[in-house]
Amino acid sequence: MPPIVAIRDLARFVGEQVTLQGWVTHRRSKGRIAFLVVRDGSGNCQAVASVQDVSADQFEQLARLTHESAVRLTGVVREDERAPGGFELQLAGVETVQLAEEYPIGRKEHGIEFLLDHRHLWLRHKGPWAVMRIRDEIVKACRDFMYERDFLLIDSPILTPAACEGTSTLFETDYFGAPAYLSQSGQLYVEPACIAHGKVYCFGPTFRAEKSDTRRHLTEFWMIEPEIAWAGLDEIMALAEQMISHIVARVLERRSEELAILERDTTKLESVTPPFPRLSYDDVAERLTRPDIVARAQQAGAPPFQPGSDLGALDETILGEMFDRPLIIHRYPTAVKAFYMEPDPERPDRALCMDIIAPEGYGEIIGGSQRIHDHELLARRIDENGLPEQAFRWYLDIRRFGTVPHAGFGMGIERLVAWISGARHTREAIPYPRTLRRLYP
Amino acid sequence: MPPIVAIRDLARFVGEQVTLQGWVTHRRSKGRIAFLVVRDGSGNCQAVASVQDVSADQFEQLARLTHESAVRLTGVVREDERAPGGFELQLAGVETVQLAEEYPIGRKEHGIEFLLDHRHLWLRHKGPWAVMRIRDEIVKACRDFMYERDFLLIDSPILTPAACEGTSTLFETDYFGAPAYLSQSGQLYVEPACIAHGKVYCFGPTFRAEKSDTRRHLTEFWMIEPEIAWAGLDEIMALAEQMISHIVARVLERRSEELAILERDTTKLESVTPPFPRLSYDDVAERLTRPDIVARAQQAGAPPFQPGSDLGALDETILGEMFDRPLIIHRYPTAVKAFYMEPDPERPDRALCMDIIAPEGYGEIIGGSQRIHDHELLARRIDENGLPEQAFRWYLDIRRFGTVPHAGFGMGIERLVAWISGARHTREAIPYPRTLRRLYP
Repeated sequence: MPPIVAIRDLARFVGEQVTLQGWVTHRRSKGRIAFLVVRDGSGNCQAVASVQDVSADQFEQLARLTHESAVRLTGVVREDERAPGGFELQLAGVETVQLAEEYPIGRKEHGIEFLLDHRHLWLRHKGPWAVMRIRDEIVKACRDFMYERDFLLIDSPILTPAACEGTSTLFETDYFGAPAYLSQSGQLYVEPACIAHGKVYCFGPTFRAEKSDTRRHLTEFWMIEPEIAWAGLDEIMALAEQMISHIVARVLERRSEELAILERDTTKLESVTPPFPRLSYDDVAERLTRPDIVARAQQAGAPPFQPGSDLGALDETILGEMFDRPLIIHRYPTAVKAFYMEPDPERPDRALCMDIIAPEGYGEIIGGSQRIHDHELLARRIDENGLPEQAFRWYLDIRRFGTVPHAGFGMGIERLVAWISGARHTREAIPYPRTLRRLYP
Repeated sequence: MPPIVAIRDLARFVGEQVTLQGWVTHRRSKGRIAFLVVRDGSGNCQAVASVQDVSADQFEQLARLTHESAVRLTGVVREDERAPGGFELQLAGVETVQLAEEYPIGRKEHGIEFLLDHRHLWLRHKGPWAVMRIRDEIVKACRDFMYERDFLLIDSPILTPAACEGTSTLFETDYFGAPAYLSQSGQLYVEPACIAHGKVYCFGPTFRAEKSDTRRHLTEFWMIEPEIAWAGLDEIMALAEQMISHIVARVLERRSEELAILERDTTKLESVTPPFPRLSYDDVAERLTRPDIVARAQQAGAPPFQPGSDLGALDETILGEMFDRPLIIHRYPTAVKAFYMEPDPERPDRALCMDIIAPEGYGEIIGGSQRIHDHELLARRIDENGLPEQAFRWYLDIRRFGTVPHAGFGMGIERLVAWISGARHTREAIPYPRTLRRLYP
């Protein structure tokens, strides 16, 4: 029996007989010669048989193979520059494991909704295959980055008794008679843990029952949230900048084949190195109220930016396009940001917070802040925001027993994946997207 | 300004002046000398000051420091074998960052419920600190193991339209007008992905709304689920055995300090090497019906094992104690297992499935199987089990387009963490446990 080999390992078997197990993506016959291309998850390989190489029955099998049929192919590996992947299999045997029914995804263009209805099959295709491999690399790069810098993983709970930032966008469930909500962020849970371990992070799915139906929104998405004791805004801006640069460099290094499949312009990724531009909210507000920018927003039909308010999606797009790398915007007005953010001591109507906007129109990928560590101030903010103090008692506790300045941020993985891989929608950046209109498959 | 240093790095600063930032865990004064022990998340360090080393005000501060107060200490690092961690700080300066209020967790014994009510603080203590560091290492070891073996991460969705194994133990939520359920397993979603990538896994939180209130049960727990195309029962038994052995070896190597803190008997972990014992369900049934085992179950007040039925918690405990390493039990009766398991061709009333039972009474840590890949058989099983065919249409699709034998398993992380760290309850193996009676903090 020849060894069963993955297509990615073919280079080690040139001149030898091997067996490949895979699925047919192309087939054509030219009289007495048949060509197949198979994929096996690790790569693609062309296989060739002339009528005398295999039995008559097997040659007939080859002619009948449909798209996505499962096959076991045996043959000798040959180097061939013209073949996809650089190697070709000279067939000596063919076994049809299953002849696929007529495959619903054809060569023609399908709309995104049709493709997502068939996501369980569409995952097999070149584009999604490459994006998922980039996603895998990004997630692993995040975790390696944290591990190597002594950040401890603290998984935060999904089922929570109270809302971190209001209840309007929460999914609710019955928890043995009491209401529970799906977590929007693990931040409240990593804060106590950073007092225990110094540097921690959580990394899991988070949920927003938002009625937004844009190409940037998912109702379920993954987020990594580092939290550091004895740190402030400067430390987390530096950490975020290093982390994003590290991830982009690693994808460029280890997933170049996938970026090429996606026809990603990698020169735009190569410029992603520290330092990132840093603008204060006030700098940004000044830019967004320039006549030419106002005119542009009006043309796009978006409401013009109002100084003092939060940034809109179009504002983020416009700002993102001004720079060749992610843009850090810091010190937003306290009034438009979350209750737990530390006010800037030099200007208390501004929060010690930052957002990072991806270039090329991918919007906000990071939001973070220094957290209020004073018990009295935090209790007042909880009260002013009409939040239930009882539910936040444990969170306030952290300010009673050894409270110290601490800071952290959350980075949304799907937007990062979409940006780095150049996908048009965030829904292409997660295996099974969940949106306002989609819970299937 | 002396450098701010983590306690784990003190060895590099012997004889030098440094600043430590941390929290007070012990304090005592002996006339003109004061001793402190501080923790900073990376370790513990003793600090000493005599009255002439620091200002009078600072010496008084030292005397007033309460448990868990936050401090900034400056002094010279000295090697001292008697000191915890092997180093001591000869104090030259003390800054009280916050004087903690009276700390609720004392030196006396507290019940587990009291401690879990204060989980946000209890995480700071030695035991939970060590368990969380072991959990971090186990999760990273899992992910490294997968990455190095070319398994691709495919995050499965939490919000799902249908039940994998019945609806009685599902958490339900309203998804913009339609019912959605929190996932009990990502298996259905990694199966299509293994046809795309060959070898994949998911690793995320899963949910069981079970009314079980035992020390093994959580309503929210993390699970890693590899799935392999062209594989059967033998391949996944081998993979599981290698994976568990790899994880245990890595924790022994990199978390020995934490195992020592927990007073874990590491000789019991050192025997965890391949091969693991493999017993068929029928072998197991024969053992469990021996008179001495039946008598033991009766003494423990448990119902005696009935051949043909699934194993109970006590059965798993008894079996687990018979071996010095995890036990693989394979080929359970089809009738007691999930609808999607491939029947054994040699004996169709037995499924090509396996469970792995941890030693020392920690119960089942892995469940897996070869999956039915024949369309007709799977459709019949879905029908026989009264499951809604419409919801499983996409899952059936995988059997229409290039179906091949495939297999996978799920490993519950909290039980693995509990076993390896020797914790008494799985609820100690996760930062913020969720159980029948607990949704807080």
